Amino acid sequence: MRNIRMTVAYVGTRYAGWQVQPDRATIQGVLEGRLSRLLQEPVRIAGAGRTDAGVHARGQVASFRTDARIQLDGLRRGLNSRLPDDIRVVRTEEVDIDFHARADARGKEYRYRLAHGAFVSPFDAPFVTAIRGTIDPDRMRQAAAEFIGSHDFESFCPTSCALDNKRRTIEVSEVIDDGPFLEYHVRGNGFLRHMVRTIVGTLIDVGQGRRPPGAIPDILASRDRRAAGPCAPARGLVLERVFYEEAT
Amino acid sequence: MRNIRMTVAYVGTRYAGWQVQPDRATIQGVLEGRLSRLLQEPVRIAGAGRTDAGVHARGQVASFRTDARIQLDGLRRGLNSRLPDDIRVVRTEEVDIDFHARADARGKEYRYRLAHGAFVSPFDAPFVTAIRGTIDPDRMRQAAAEFIGSHDFESFCPTSCALDNKRRTIEVSEVIDDGPFLEYHVRGNGFLRHMVRTIVGTLIDVGQGRRPPGAIPDILASRDRRAAGPCAPARGLVLERVFYEEAT
Repeated sequence: MRNIRMTVAYVGTRYAGWQVQPDRATIQGVLEGRLSRLLQEPVRIAGAGRTDAGVHARGQVASFRTDARIQLDGLRRGLNSRLPDDIRVVRTEEVDIDFHARADARGKEYRYRLAHGAFVSPFDAPFVTAIRGTIDPDRMRQAAAEFIGSHDFESFCPTSCALDNKRRTIEVSEVIDDGPFLEYHVRGNGFLRHMVRTIVGTLIDVGQGRRPPGAIPDILASRDRRAAGPCAPARGLVLERVFYEEAT
Repeated sequence: MRNIRMTVAYVGTRYAGWQVQPDRATIQGVLEGRLSRLLQEPVRIAGAGRTDAGVHARGQVASFRTDARIQLDGLRRGLNSRLPDDIRVVRTEEVDIDFHARADARGKEYRYRLAHGAFVSPFDAPFVTAIRGTIDPDRMRQAAAEFIGSHDFESFCPTSCALDNKRRTIEVSEVIDDGPFLEYHVRGNGFLRHMVRTIVGTLIDVGQGRRPPGAIPDILASRDRRAAGPCAPARGLVLERVFYEEAT
Protein backbone atom coordinates (compact mmCIF):
# COMPACT_ATOMS: atom_id res chain seq x y z
CA MET A 1 0.00 0.00 0.00
CA ARG A 2 1.33 3.46 -0.93
CA ASN A 3 0.20 6.91 0.11
CA ILE A 4 0.24 9.57 -2.63
CA ARG A 5 0.10 13.32 -2.18
CA MET A 6 -1.07 15.44 -5.12
CA THR A 7 -0.91 19.21 -5.57
CA VAL A 8 -3.95 20.28 -7.57
CA ALA A 9 -4.84 23.52 -9.41
CA TYR A 10 -8.35 24.32 -10.57
CA VAL A 11 -10.70 27.00 -11.81
CA GLY A 12 -13.74 26.53 -9.59
CA THR A 13 -16.28 28.39 -11.76
CA ARG A 14 -18.07 25.30 -13.07
CA TYR A 15 -18.04 23.32 -9.82
CA ALA A 16 -20.16 23.07 -6.67
CA GLY A 17 -16.96 23.24 -4.63
CA TRP A 18 -14.35 20.68 -3.59
CA GLN A 19 -16.38 18.19 -1.63
CA VAL A 20 -18.32 15.33 -3.24
CA GLN A 21 -22.06 15.97 -3.46
CA PRO A 22 -24.72 13.76 -5.01
CA ASP A 23 -25.71 14.85 -8.54
CA ARG A 24 -23.39 17.85 -8.62
CA ALA A 25 -20.03 18.31 -10.29
CA THR A 26 -17.33 18.80 -7.64
CA ILE A 27 -13.55 18.84 -7.85
CA GLN A 28 -13.16 15.89 -5.48
CA GLY A 29 -15.84 13.95 -7.37
CA VAL A 30 -14.18 14.49 -10.76
CA LEU A 31 -10.72 13.61 -9.38
CA GLU A 32 -11.96 10.44 -7.65
CA GLY A 33 -13.85 9.33 -10.77
CA ARG A 34 -10.87 9.81 -13.12
CA LEU A 35 -8.41 8.34 -10.62
CA SER A 36 -10.56 5.26 -10.00
CA ARG A 37 -10.81 4.63 -13.72
CA LEU A 38 -7.07 5.17 -14.27
CA LEU A 39 -6.04 2.87 -11.39
CA GLN A 40 -8.92 0.44 -11.94
CA GLU A 41 -9.79 0.44 -8.26
CA PRO A 42 -12.12 2.62 -6.18
CA VAL A 43 -10.16 5.58 -4.80
CA ARG A 44 -11.19 8.03 -2.09
CA ILE A 45 -9.13 11.20 -1.74
CA ALA A 46 -8.81 13.61 1.20
CA GLY A 47 -8.44 17.29 0.39
CA ALA A 48 -6.65 19.80 2.61
CA GLY A 49 -9.29 22.49 2.17
CA ARG A 50 -12.95 22.08 1.29
CA THR A 51 -13.15 25.04 -1.04
CA ASP A 52 -16.66 26.41 -1.68
CA ALA A 53 -18.54 26.53 -4.96
CA GLY A 54 -16.78 28.87 -7.37
CA VAL A 55 -13.53 29.17 -5.37
CA HIS A 56 -10.29 28.45 -7.27
CA ALA A 57 -7.01 26.81 -6.25
CA ARG A 58 -3.40 26.95 -7.36
CA GLY A 59 -2.06 24.73 -4.57
CA GLN A 60 -4.80 22.52 -3.14
CA VAL A 61 -3.34 19.32 -1.64
CA ALA A 62 -5.04 15.93 -1.69
CA SER A 63 -3.88 12.48 -0.57
CA PHE A 64 -5.01 8.93 -1.27
CA ARG A 65 -3.83 5.39 -0.73
CA THR A 66 -3.48 2.82 -3.46
CA ASP A 67 -2.11 -0.62 -4.22
CA ALA A 68 -1.58 0.31 -7.86
CA ARG A 69 2.05 0.20 -8.96
CA ILE A 70 1.85 3.17 -11.34
CA GLN A 71 4.86 5.53 -11.50
CA LEU A 72 4.37 8.99 -10.00
CA ASP A 73 4.96 10.90 -13.20
CA GLY A 74 2.81 8.48 -15.19
CA LEU A 75 0.07 8.99 -12.63
CA ARG A 76 0.23 12.78 -13.03
CA ARG A 77 0.27 12.66 -16.83
CA GLY A 78 -2.37 9.93 -17.05
CA LEU A 79 -4.67 11.82 -14.75
CA ASN A 80 -4.15 15.17 -16.53
CA SER A 81 -4.92 13.57 -19.89
CA ARG A 82 -8.27 12.38 -18.46
CA LEU A 83 -9.23 15.53 -16.50
CA PRO A 84 -11.19 18.47 -17.91
CA ASP A 85 -8.79 21.33 -18.55
CA ASP A 86 -10.05 23.39 -15.59
CA ILE A 87 -8.49 20.85 -13.20
CA ARG A 88 -4.80 19.93 -13.31
CA VAL A 89 -2.53 17.83 -11.12
CA VAL A 90 0.60 19.94 -10.68
CA ARG A 91 2.68 17.46 -8.69
CA THR A 92 2.56 13.91 -7.33
CA GLU A 93 4.77 12.59 -4.47
CA GLU A 94 4.88 9.45 -2.41
CA VAL A 95 4.51 10.25 1.31
CA ASP A 96 4.54 8.41 4.63
CA ILE A 97 1.63 5.97 4.90
CA ASP A 98 0.22 7.96 7.85
CA PHE A 99 0.12 11.31 6.02
CA HIS A 100 -3.37 12.82 5.63
CA ALA A 101 -3.80 15.98 3.53
CA ARG A 102 -6.41 17.55 5.81
CA ALA A 103 -5.46 16.27 9.28
CA ASP A 104 -1.76 17.09 8.82
CA ALA A 105 -2.19 20.56 7.26
CA ARG A 106 -0.44 23.16 9.47
CA GLY A 107 -1.48 26.22 7.56
CA LYS A 108 -2.95 27.65 4.38
CA GLU A 109 -2.48 30.69 2.22
CA TYR A 110 -5.30 32.35 0.29
CA ARG A 111 -5.46 35.32 -2.05
CA TYR A 112 -8.51 37.35 -2.89
CA ARG A 113 -8.51 39.63 -5.94
CA LEU A 114 -10.56 42.82 -6.21
CA ALA A 115 -10.83 45.12 -9.23
CA HIS A 116 -11.27 48.74 -8.18
CA GLY A 117 -11.25 50.35 -11.61
CA ALA A 118 -14.40 50.95 -13.65
CA PHE A 119 -13.68 48.11 -16.00
CA VAL A 120 -12.86 44.40 -15.60
CA SER A 121 -11.50 42.69 -18.69
CA PRO A 122 -13.45 39.57 -19.70
CA PHE A 123 -10.13 37.71 -19.47
CA ASP A 124 -9.85 38.55 -15.74
CA ALA A 125 -13.54 38.45 -14.83
CA PRO A 126 -13.76 34.82 -13.63
CA PHE A 127 -11.03 35.47 -11.04
CA VAL A 128 -11.91 38.92 -9.75
CA THR A 129 -14.62 40.66 -7.77
CA ALA A 130 -15.41 44.10 -9.16
CA ILE A 131 -15.88 46.90 -6.63
CA ARG A 132 -18.47 49.54 -7.43
CA GLY A 133 -17.46 53.02 -6.37
CA THR A 134 -14.18 54.12 -4.86
CA ILE A 135 -12.21 52.22 -2.25
CA ASP A 136 -9.29 53.34 -0.04
CA PRO A 137 -6.54 50.67 0.05
CA ASP A 138 -4.83 52.34 3.03
CA ARG A 139 -7.92 52.02 5.21
CA MET A 140 -8.13 48.36 4.14
CA ARG A 141 -4.43 47.82 5.00
CA GLN A 142 -4.92 49.29 8.46
CA ALA A 143 -7.91 47.01 9.14
CA ALA A 144 -6.21 43.94 7.60
CA ALA A 145 -3.34 44.21 10.10
CA GLU A 146 -5.83 43.85 12.98
CA PHE A 147 -6.43 40.21 12.02
CA ILE A 148 -2.82 39.18 12.70
CA GLY A 149 -2.50 37.06 15.84
CA SER A 150 -4.70 34.49 17.52
CA HIS A 151 -8.45 35.24 17.62
CA ASP A 152 -11.82 33.57 17.99
CA PHE A 153 -13.33 33.94 14.49
CA GLU A 154 -16.97 33.20 15.39
CA SER A 155 -18.03 36.57 13.89
CA PHE A 156 -16.49 35.56 10.54
CA CYS A 157 -18.23 32.22 9.90
CA PRO A 158 -21.86 31.25 9.33
CA THR A 159 -23.97 30.76 12.47
CA SER A 160 -24.51 27.19 11.22
CA CYS A 161 -20.81 26.43 11.81
CA ALA A 162 -20.81 23.87 14.64
CA LEU A 163 -17.08 23.66 15.42
CA ASP A 164 -16.21 23.87 19.15
CA ASN A 165 -12.97 25.72 18.63
CA LYS A 166 -13.15 28.77 16.40
CA ARG A 167 -9.76 30.13 17.48
CA ARG A 168 -7.32 30.51 14.59
CA THR A 169 -3.91 32.13 14.29
CA ILE A 170 -3.23 34.50 11.38
CA GLU A 171 0.39 35.20 10.40
CA VAL A 172 -0.03 37.23 7.22
CA SER A 173 -2.95 39.57 6.51
CA GLU A 174 -2.16 42.28 4.00
CA VAL A 175 -3.53 44.25 1.07
CA ILE A 176 -1.22 44.39 -1.98
CA ASP A 177 -1.50 46.70 -5.01
CA ASP A 178 -1.28 44.82 -8.30
CA GLY A 179 -1.93 47.26 -11.15
CA PRO A 180 -5.69 47.63 -11.56
CA PHE A 181 -6.24 45.03 -8.84
CA LEU A 182 -6.10 44.95 -5.06
CA GLU A 183 -5.11 41.61 -3.58
CA TYR A 184 -5.75 40.47 -0.05
CA HIS A 185 -3.14 37.90 1.08
CA VAL A 186 -3.82 35.86 4.18
CA ARG A 187 -1.91 32.99 5.78
CA GLY A 188 -2.94 31.19 8.95
CA ASN A 189 -2.98 27.87 10.73
CA GLY A 190 -6.56 27.21 9.65
CA PHE A 191 -9.70 28.86 8.31
CA LEU A 192 -13.38 28.42 9.13
CA ARG A 193 -16.01 28.14 6.42
CA HIS A 194 -16.46 31.51 4.58
CA MET A 195 -13.84 33.05 6.88
CA VAL A 196 -11.57 34.58 4.22
CA ARG A 197 -14.55 35.85 2.20
CA THR A 198 -16.16 37.42 5.28
CA ILE A 199 -12.87 39.09 6.22
CA VAL A 200 -12.73 40.46 2.64
CA GLY A 201 -16.37 41.61 2.80
CA THR A 202 -15.55 43.45 6.01
CA LEU A 203 -12.36 44.98 4.53
CA ILE A 204 -14.42 46.23 1.55
CA ASP A 205 -16.83 47.88 4.03
CA VAL A 206 -13.84 49.57 5.68
CA GLY A 207 -12.28 50.58 2.35
CA GLN A 208 -15.54 52.15 1.22
CA GLY A 209 -16.08 54.04 4.46
CA ARG A 210 -18.99 52.03 5.85
CA ARG A 211 -16.90 51.02 8.90
CA PRO A 212 -13.85 52.56 10.59
CA PRO A 213 -10.48 50.80 10.11
CA GLY A 214 -10.30 50.32 13.89
CA ALA A 215 -13.56 48.32 14.01
CA ILE A 216 -11.98 44.87 13.67
CA PRO A 217 -11.10 44.14 17.35
CA ASP A 218 -14.69 44.91 18.40
CA ILE A 219 -16.12 42.72 15.61
CA LEU A 220 -13.87 39.85 16.70
CA ALA A 221 -14.73 40.35 20.38
CA SER A 222 -18.48 40.37 19.73
CA ARG A 223 -18.40 36.73 18.51
CA ASP A 224 -21.52 37.62 16.53
CA ARG A 225 -21.77 36.99 12.78
CA ARG A 226 -24.03 40.05 12.39
CA ALA A 227 -21.18 42.31 13.51
CA ALA A 228 -18.99 41.50 10.47
CA GLY A 229 -19.48 42.46 6.83
CA PRO A 230 -20.99 40.37 4.01
CA CYS A 231 -19.37 37.24 2.61
CA ALA A 232 -17.56 38.42 -0.54
CA PRO A 233 -18.22 36.48 -3.80
CA ALA A 234 -16.41 33.17 -4.35
CA ARG A 235 -14.90 34.07 -7.72
CA GLY A 236 -12.18 36.33 -6.29
CA LEU A 237 -10.75 33.66 -3.96
CA VAL A 238 -7.81 31.33 -4.67
CA LEU A 239 -6.34 28.71 -2.31
CA GLU A 240 -2.67 29.33 -3.06
CA ARG A 241 -0.83 26.91 -0.83
CA VAL A 242 -1.15 24.39 2.01
CA PHE A 243 1.66 24.07 4.55
CA TYR A 244 2.83 20.87 6.31
CA GLU A 245 5.43 20.11 8.96
CA GLU A 246 8.14 18.98 6.56
CA ALA A 247 9.62 21.31 3.98
CA THR A 248 7.54 21.35 0.81
CA MET B 1 -28.58 60.23 -36.70
CA ARG B 2 -25.24 59.43 -35.05
CA ASN B 3 -22.64 56.80 -35.88
CA ILE B 4 -20.97 55.11 -32.88
CA ARG B 5 -17.79 53.08 -32.89
CA MET B 6 -17.24 50.61 -30.04
CA THR B 7 -14.09 48.71 -29.11
CA VAL B 8 -15.12 45.33 -27.72
CA ALA B 9 -13.24 42.65 -25.73
CA TYR B 10 -14.54 39.14 -25.28
CA VAL B 11 -13.71 35.61 -24.25
CA GLY B 12 -15.12 33.56 -27.13
CA THR B 13 -15.27 30.19 -25.36
CA ARG B 14 -19.04 30.12 -24.87
CA TYR B 15 -19.98 31.61 -28.25
CA ALA B 16 -20.55 30.33 -31.77
CA GLY B 17 -18.37 33.20 -33.04
CA TRP B 18 -19.00 36.86 -33.80
CA GLN B 19 -21.68 36.69 -36.46
CA VAL B 20 -25.40 36.37 -35.69
CA GLN B 21 -26.76 32.85 -36.23
CA PRO B 22 -30.26 31.58 -35.58
CA ASP B 23 -30.60 29.74 -32.25
CA ARG B 24 -26.95 30.12 -31.27
CA ALA B 25 -25.28 32.50 -28.85
CA THR B 26 -22.98 34.83 -30.76
CA ILE B 27 -21.11 37.98 -29.73
CA GLN B 28 -22.87 40.14 -32.30
CA GLY B 29 -26.25 38.67 -31.30
CA VAL B 30 -25.73 39.36 -27.60
CA LEU B 31 -24.47 42.90 -28.29
CA GLU B 32 -27.36 43.74 -30.62
CA GLY B 33 -29.90 42.35 -28.15
CA ARG B 34 -28.56 44.31 -25.18
CA LEU B 35 -28.02 47.46 -27.23
CA SER B 36 -31.54 47.35 -28.70
CA ARG B 37 -33.05 47.02 -25.23
CA LEU B 38 -30.86 49.79 -23.81
CA LEU B 39 -31.65 52.22 -26.64
CA GLN B 40 -35.24 51.01 -27.06
CA GLU B 41 -34.86 50.75 -30.81
CA PRO B 42 -33.72 47.90 -33.06
CA VAL B 43 -29.94 48.18 -33.60
CA ARG B 44 -27.77 46.35 -36.15
CA ILE B 45 -24.02 46.47 -35.63
CA ALA B 46 -21.20 45.84 -38.08
CA GLY B 47 -18.08 44.10 -36.74
CA ALA B 48 -14.61 44.60 -38.20
CA GLY B 49 -13.74 40.90 -38.02
CA ARG B 50 -16.09 37.91 -38.03
CA THR B 51 -14.18 35.89 -35.45
CA ASP B 52 -14.91 32.15 -35.45
CA ALA B 53 -16.46 30.09 -32.66
CA GLY B 54 -14.14 30.05 -29.63
CA VAL B 55 -11.87 32.88 -30.83
CA HIS B 56 -11.29 35.76 -28.37
CA ALA B 57 -10.82 39.51 -28.83
CA ARG B 58 -9.17 42.35 -26.95
CA GLY B 59 -9.79 44.96 -29.62
CA GLN B 60 -12.67 44.00 -31.91
CA VAL B 61 -14.31 47.10 -33.41
CA ALA B 62 -18.02 47.44 -34.18
CA SER B 63 -20.10 50.35 -35.42
CA PHE B 64 -23.79 51.19 -35.45
CA ARG B 65 -26.08 54.12 -36.18
CA THR B 66 -28.67 55.40 -33.78
CA ASP B 67 -31.08 58.25 -33.18
CA ALA B 68 -30.82 57.77 -29.41
CA ARG B 69 -29.41 60.76 -27.54
CA ILE B 70 -27.52 58.74 -24.91
CA GLN B 71 -24.08 60.00 -23.79
CA LEU B 72 -21.07 57.96 -24.93
CA ASP B 73 -19.88 57.05 -21.45
CA GLY B 74 -23.42 56.26 -20.29
CA LEU B 75 -23.77 54.01 -23.33
CA ARG B 76 -20.59 52.11 -22.42
CA ARG B 77 -21.50 51.75 -18.76
CA GLY B 78 -25.15 50.89 -19.44
CA LEU B 79 -24.19 48.26 -21.97
CA ASN B 80 -21.51 46.73 -19.72
CA SER B 81 -23.96 46.48 -16.82
CA ARG B 82 -26.30 44.48 -19.08
CA LEU B 83 -23.70 42.27 -20.81
CA PRO B 84 -22.49 38.89 -19.50
CA ASP B 85 -19.02 39.33 -18.00
CA ASP B 86 -17.27 37.58 -20.89
CA ILE B 87 -18.13 40.51 -23.18
CA ARG B 88 -17.11 44.10 -22.39
CA VAL B 89 -17.27 47.39 -24.26
CA VAL B 90 -13.85 48.96 -23.71
CA ARG B 91 -14.50 52.25 -25.51
CA THR B 92 -17.23 54.20 -27.30
CA GLU B 93 -16.63 57.09 -29.73
CA GLU B 94 -18.75 59.08 -32.10
CA VAL B 95 -17.45 58.82 -35.66
CA ASP B 96 -18.25 60.24 -39.08
CA ILE B 97 -21.67 59.10 -40.30
CA ASP B 98 -20.01 57.23 -43.22
CA PHE B 99 -17.65 55.18 -41.05
CA HIS B 100 -18.18 51.40 -41.26
CA ALA B 101 -16.21 49.11 -38.93
CA ARG B 102 -15.67 46.39 -41.53
CA ALA B 103 -15.53 48.28 -44.81
CA ASP B 104 -13.11 50.91 -43.45
CA ALA B 105 -10.73 48.52 -41.61
CA ARG B 106 -7.22 48.92 -43.05
CA GLY B 107 -5.56 46.18 -41.05
CA LYS B 108 -5.78 43.80 -38.12
CA GLU B 109 -3.47 42.34 -35.54
CA TYR B 110 -3.89 38.85 -34.11
CA ARG B 111 -1.98 36.87 -31.51
CA TYR B 112 -1.96 33.13 -31.12
CA ARG B 113 -0.70 31.56 -27.90
CA LEU B 114 0.91 28.12 -27.67
CA ALA B 115 2.05 26.32 -24.52
CA HIS B 116 5.09 24.17 -25.18
CA GLY B 117 5.70 22.90 -21.66
CA ALA B 118 4.20 19.68 -20.30
CA PHE B 119 1.65 21.50 -18.21
CA VAL B 120 -0.97 24.18 -18.89
CA SER B 121 -2.43 25.84 -15.80
CA PRO B 122 -6.23 25.70 -15.65
CA PHE B 123 -6.11 29.51 -15.37
CA ASP B 124 -4.43 29.76 -18.80
CA ALA B 125 -6.13 26.81 -20.52
CA PRO B 126 -9.04 28.68 -22.19
CA PHE B 127 -6.59 30.97 -24.01
CA VAL B 128 -3.82 28.59 -25.01
CA THR B 129 -3.26 25.64 -27.32
CA ALA B 130 -1.05 23.00 -25.74
CA ILE B 131 1.63 21.44 -27.93
CA ARG B 132 2.39 17.77 -27.40
CA GLY B 133 6.07 16.94 -27.72
CA THR B 134 8.94 19.30 -28.37
CA ILE B 135 8.89 22.29 -30.69
CA ASP B 136 11.74 24.42 -32.05
CA PRO B 137 10.88 28.15 -31.88
CA ASP B 138 13.79 29.09 -34.16
CA ARG B 139 12.47 26.92 -36.98
CA MET B 140 9.06 28.55 -36.46
CA ARG B 141 10.61 32.05 -36.54
CA GLN B 142 12.37 31.29 -39.80
CA ALA B 143 9.14 30.04 -41.39
CA ALA B 144 7.05 32.90 -39.92
CA ALA B 145 9.25 35.49 -41.67
CA GLU B 146 8.36 33.94 -45.06
CA PHE B 147 4.78 35.22 -44.72
CA ILE B 148 5.84 38.88 -44.71
CA GLY B 149 4.91 40.66 -47.92
CA SER B 150 2.05 40.37 -50.36
CA HIS B 151 0.84 36.84 -51.19
CA ASP B 152 -2.13 34.93 -52.49
CA PHE B 153 -3.33 33.01 -49.41
CA GLU B 154 -5.55 30.47 -51.18
CA SER B 155 -3.58 27.62 -49.53
CA PHE B 156 -4.41 29.03 -46.09
CA CYS B 157 -8.21 29.25 -46.28
CA PRO B 158 -10.95 26.63 -46.66
CA THR B 159 -11.71 25.48 -50.20
CA SER B 160 -15.25 26.76 -49.59
CA CYS B 161 -13.93 30.34 -49.41
CA ALA B 162 -15.49 32.04 -52.46
CA LEU B 163 -13.64 35.39 -52.44
CA ASP B 164 -12.21 36.48 -55.78
CA ASN B 165 -9.18 38.15 -54.35
CA LYS B 166 -7.18 36.13 -51.84
CA ARG B 167 -4.14 38.37 -51.99
CA ARG B 168 -3.28 39.88 -48.61
CA THR B 169 -0.28 41.87 -47.34
CA ILE B 170 1.41 40.83 -44.09
CA GLU B 171 3.55 43.40 -42.27
CA VAL B 172 4.36 41.58 -39.03
CA SER B 173 4.73 37.81 -38.70
CA GLU B 174 6.86 36.74 -35.76
CA VAL B 175 7.18 34.20 -32.97
CA ILE B 176 7.77 35.66 -29.50
CA ASP B 177 8.91 33.83 -26.34
CA ASP B 178 6.71 34.61 -23.35
CA GLY B 179 7.80 32.42 -20.42
CA PRO B 180 6.15 29.01 -20.82
CA PHE B 181 4.31 30.26 -23.91
CA LEU B 182 5.15 30.89 -27.54
CA GLU B 183 3.14 33.67 -29.16
CA TYR B 184 2.65 34.16 -32.86
CA HIS B 185 2.03 37.85 -33.70
CA VAL B 186 0.67 38.74 -37.09
CA ARG B 187 -0.46 42.04 -38.59
CA GLY B 188 -1.77 42.51 -42.08
CA ASN B 189 -4.20 44.43 -44.26
CA GLY B 190 -6.77 41.64 -44.05
CA PHE B 191 -7.21 37.97 -43.27
CA LEU B 192 -9.22 35.21 -44.93
CA ARG B 193 -11.33 32.80 -42.90
CA HIS B 194 -9.13 30.43 -40.83
CA MET B 195 -6.03 32.11 -42.28
CA VAL B 196 -4.22 32.87 -39.00
CA ARG B 197 -5.06 29.46 -37.55
CA THR B 198 -3.86 27.67 -40.69
CA ILE B 199 -0.63 29.67 -40.67
CA VAL B 200 -0.19 28.63 -37.00
CA GLY B 201 -0.98 24.97 -37.80
CA THR B 202 1.68 25.10 -40.53
CA LEU B 203 4.21 26.79 -38.20
CA ILE B 204 3.61 24.03 -35.62
CA ASP B 205 4.34 21.45 -38.33
CA VAL B 206 7.61 23.27 -39.06
CA GLY B 207 8.49 23.63 -35.36
CA GLN B 208 7.96 19.94 -34.81
CA GLY B 209 10.01 18.89 -37.81
CA ARG B 210 7.20 17.70 -40.06
CA ARG B 211 8.02 20.34 -42.68
CA PRO B 212 11.21 22.30 -43.44
CA PRO B 213 11.27 26.02 -42.44
CA GLY B 214 11.80 26.88 -46.12
CA ALA B 215 8.55 25.21 -47.22
CA ILE B 216 6.35 28.30 -46.97
CA PRO B 217 6.99 29.89 -50.41
CA ASP B 218 6.10 26.59 -52.14
CA ILE B 219 2.93 26.19 -50.03
CA LEU B 220 1.86 29.74 -50.93
CA ALA B 221 2.68 29.21 -54.62
CA SER B 222 0.70 25.96 -54.80
CA ARG B 223 -2.59 27.79 -54.09
CA ASP B 224 -3.83 24.45 -52.75
CA ARG B 225 -5.33 24.12 -49.26
CA ARG B 226 -3.93 20.57 -48.99
CA ALA B 227 -0.38 21.90 -49.15
CA ALA B 228 -0.66 23.80 -45.83
CA GLY B 229 -0.90 22.42 -42.29
CA PRO B 230 -4.02 21.90 -40.19
CA CYS B 231 -6.18 24.74 -38.85
CA ALA B 232 -4.99 25.25 -35.24
CA PRO B 233 -7.67 25.29 -32.47
CA ALA B 234 -9.68 28.49 -31.95
CA ARG B 235 -8.93 28.86 -28.23
CA GLY B 236 -5.36 30.16 -28.73
CA LEU B 237 -6.40 33.04 -31.02
CA VAL B 238 -7.07 36.65 -29.97
CA LEU B 239 -8.05 39.56 -32.26
CA GLU B 240 -5.86 42.24 -30.66
CA ARG B 241 -6.52 45.34 -32.71
CA VAL B 242 -8.16 46.73 -35.82
CA PHE B 243 -6.49 49.60 -37.70
CA TYR B 244 -8.20 52.47 -39.53
CA GLU B 245 -7.00 55.39 -41.62
CA GLU B 246 -7.18 57.99 -38.90
CA ALA B 247 -5.08 57.70 -35.74
CA THR B 248 -6.76 55.48 -33.11
